[in-house]
Amino acid sequence: MGRVIAVITDFGYGVYVGQMKGVILGINPSAIIIDLAHDIGRQNVREGAFVLYHSYKYFPKETVFLCVVDPGVGGHRRAIAIETKNYFLVGPDNGLMYPVAEEDGFRRVVELSNPRYMLPAVSRTFHGRDIFAPAAAYLSLGLEINELGCEIDPKDLVRLKFPKPRSSDRYIDGEVLYVDRFGNIITNIPDKLLYGIGVKLGDILSIEVAGRLLEIPFVKNYSSVEEGVMLCLIDSFNLLEISVNRGNASKTLNVKEGDSVRIFKNT
Amino acid sequence: MGRVIAVITDFGYGVYVGQMKGVILGINPSAIIIDLAHDIGRQNVREGAFVLYHSYKYFPKETVFLCVVDPGVGGHRRAIAIETKNYFLVGPDNGLMYPVAEEDGFRRVVELSNPRYMLPAVSRTFHGRDIFAPAAAYLSLGLEINELGCEIDPKDLVRLKFPKPRSSDRYIDGEVLYVDRFGNIITNIPDKLLYGIGVKLGDILSIEVAGRLLEIPFVKNYSSVEEGVMLCLIDSFNLLEISVNRGNASKTLNVKEGDSVRIFKNT
Amino acid sequence: MGRVIAVITDFGYGVYVGQMKGVILGINPSAIIIDLAHDIGRQNVREGAFVLYHSYKYFPKETVFLCVVDPGVGGHRRAIAIETKNYFLVGPDNGLMYPVAEEDGFRRVVELSNPRYMLPAVSRTFHGRDIFAPAAAYLSLGLEINELGCEIDPKDLVRLKFPKPRSSDRYIDGEVLYVDRFGNIITNIPDKLLYGIGVKLGDILSIEVAGRLLEIPFVKNYSSVEEGVMLCLIDSFNLLEISVNRGNASKTLNVKEGDSVRIFKNT
Repeated sequence: MGRVIAVITDFGYGVYVGQMKGVILGINPSAIIIDLAHDIGRQNVREGAFVLYHSYKYFPKETVFLCVVDPGVGGHRRAIAIETKNYFLVGPDNGLMYPVAEEDGFRRVVELSNPRYMLPAVSRTFHGRDIFAPAAAYLSLGLEINELGCEIDPKDLVRLKFPKPRSSDRYIDGEVLYVDRFGNIITNIPDKLLYGIGVKLGDILSIEVAGRLLEIPFVKNYSSVEEGVMLCLIDSFNLLEISVNRGNASKTLNVKEGDSVRIFKNT
Repeated sequence: MGRVIAVITDFGYGVYVGQMKGVILGINPSAIIIDLAHDIGRQNVREGAFVLYHSYKYFPKETVFLCVVDPGVGGHRRAIAIETKNYFLVGPDNGLMYPVAEEDGFRRVVELSNPRYMLPAVSRTFHGRDIFAPAAAYLSLGLEINELGCEIDPKDLVRLKFPKPRSSDRYIDGEVLYVDRFGNIITNIPDKLLYGIGVKLGDILSIEVAGRLLEIPFVKNYSSVEEGVMLCLIDSFNLLEISVNRGNASKTLNVKEGDSVRIFKNT
Repeated sequence: MGRVIAVITDFGYGVYVGQMKGVILGINPSAIIIDLAHDIGRQNVREGAFVLYHSYKYFPKETVFLCVVDPGVGGHRRAIAIETKNYFLVGPDNGLMYPVAEEDGFRRVVELSNPRYMLPAVSRTFHGRDIFAPAAAYLSLGLEINELGCEIDPKDLVRLKFPKPRSSDRYIDGEVLYVDRFGNIITNIPDKLLYGIGVKLGDILSIEVAGRLLEIPFVKNYSSVEEGVMLCLIDSFNLLEISVNRGNASKTLNVKEGDSVRIFKNT
């Protein structure tokens, strides 16, 4: 049995993920493999990092996260595995896994350089199958991480930081971190920051999003407003989310990841 | 190991389902988790109920069905678990699970009110992860259902009934219950009702669907007619289905769930 | 536990696959079920055969492949199970599984005729659930294949051969075998054939694809060229692939499976 392997990729649900699972079972036939998500935007490392960062704590300790959003495959980016205080992460050194490792605490980082723990033939375009899946499978069996390759200094890793909201006298300035498959617009503004400026359920927030000024009720849940009505709330990521009840806020507002969001403070 | 957990949601295949599985494994690390379906139409409780009702018997006894089509999340609807004669069901009290429980036979129903079996922090928008997934995980481990909360009377549950076809001298009047991902139009008219009026393979049925009168051959299977030709048959739900061989009947006829279907009897 | 079951269908990710998994667990409650792929083009037997053929070796020996791309369901095509040197295959006799069985080596082939190993009621439209899934489940438990029905001669099976490229003085003539979900165009031209005519990384290949003459750099990986630029490379199937870095080559060139591809040799 061993450790759970949770897989996150931008491959979509299809053959590429299927091949990775075949490789894992070839090494650990009783591996427990869970799809964390495969609908990450193609080569969108920041979106993958967001989803991973907001999900890892829900998994049991010692879970091995197999993370493949890898635009630089076959190039100069390093293939790595990270042992944190509670978890393992396997994937490219492009920032994808950095926020989790930084928050949970680095233990050891290695470069995946030991061919013994790769497939015999390594392609140039699919390290998810040929390098990362085998490494994750061996870790799930309890292999010591330093068997996988040479240790490297966490300080040398490619870093990825989510933009932090800035609060001034009159505004909170944030941005859109993630648009989910329902078109819900998830910002980088956490519940505490909103509550800190005295926002209460039932308030109407003045929000400028992607250059458009809106008055949006701040409510408890999606069904707090009528169908088709725009709302904002603290969502399951504990972040401010702009949504349309049974609708698609992202399409309605033509908003995408990276767009700016400004909350006007009551004065 | 314990009981199988089968998951049905309207979340699509992505991070929300991934987080639920993480929560389950955190409680029961060797849980067997199966995706029943995640492509239920958004917040379409009746469609979810249809898919669940027509699938549950294929699962082993004692399977725990984790059911999340939950437009009222965070509002007044209750979170419940149901023990039926052969299965367990966990989800919102909105009718989603009612047809299964009614058919299989109620044993016990409880409201999920015991915080011991929830995540420590319960969001207002994602009870699938914070309340339902933990309850399902504990049931999969063999927990007695009444540990999860106070027992409630099955008579007090929100009911959902599928519309039944009516048969008169000249017609069978039914409706569209489900359109599958291939555009097959699944009606609420069961095989027995058709055979009861003497319909035989090879007959041409006169069917009015969504206001349009059609003559459709009643055949054995999809390939009984040429490519692109409309047909009707008894499908794998044991219901009358209108289909186009290798085509999309729902698009061809512009038909959707809830549309009326009338079969003219031979006179 | 027993043998792994890997499932490949054209059903998409949804209820039809969910029901098949329920049936499997009803027979083998601790089956390890892996999704190989469910996004095969509807009733596209050749595409299914391609994906299966290029994936099976990544799975552990004795894996049972449950293969359902079955346009002839309910008609005259036979339901079969194949034991090869290292694997088991269950599905329709329409060529879907032929290339794998031929390459790995036939041991025994049987027609699935023993009702003891089917569901009690067999529908005419969904043998994946009613015949193939039970057979795969029993094989996963170690059942001898000849319990499932009468042995048949491999020579009597429906064959499927992938078209082979032809090499002449001036050209290599091949065709498009598969377009993946990213729009990458995968040809039937293997690495060896290209290297055999002296192609090297950095060369510009003259390729005629779907009637259009193109000059495409032959590179190491997707990120070897700028975003939006067309490239070709040896992909993870070990085949020549035409791609656009972070783009969709199939849409750009309006190319689909079966289209011809001609490589001009340097003279």
